[in-house]
Amino acid sequence: MRNEKLVAFGKRVRELRKNKGLSQDGFAVLSGIDRSYMGQVERGEKNVTLIKIYQLSEALGVEVADLFPRVDG
Amino acid sequence: MRNEKLVAFGKRVRELRKNKGLSQDGFAVLSGIDRSYMGQVERGEKNVTLIKIYQLSEALGVEVADLFPRVDG
Repeated sequence: MRNEKLVAFGKRVRELRKNKGLSQDGFAVLSGIDRSYMGQVERGEKNVTLIKIYQLSEALGVEVADLFPRVDG
Repeated sequence: MRNEKLVAFGKRVRELRKNKGLSQDGFAVLSGIDRSYMGQVERGEKNVTLIKIYQLSEALGVEVADLFPRVDG
């Protein structure tokens, strides 16, 4: 599973995690989301489901819409 | 699979489809997304994946972020 939209999503997730000043390990401790799973998401290797997207947004402290930058900026 | 967030997502998808003046049948013809699948999504019975969410947003003519209304309005 490798797809440019999954890759773009993963980059956005990584950006938001780093904005919180967290390593993947630190994020795992705080969120309960497995470190290796998070790595796969950030590399665009997971076709994540809607329920997981909600869990990620809550763990990152953003709204789901913020995980999807608008094409028109 | 029944989850309040999936139900809310499904309602939003239904709203956007109706905003386009399309029945589920009409939407299926235009988008190639199966009518019964769309019915499951709209009822919140599908934990849709990210790739499918992108396909839905394109078929509905909106950005992905528009599928997720903000909690703060």
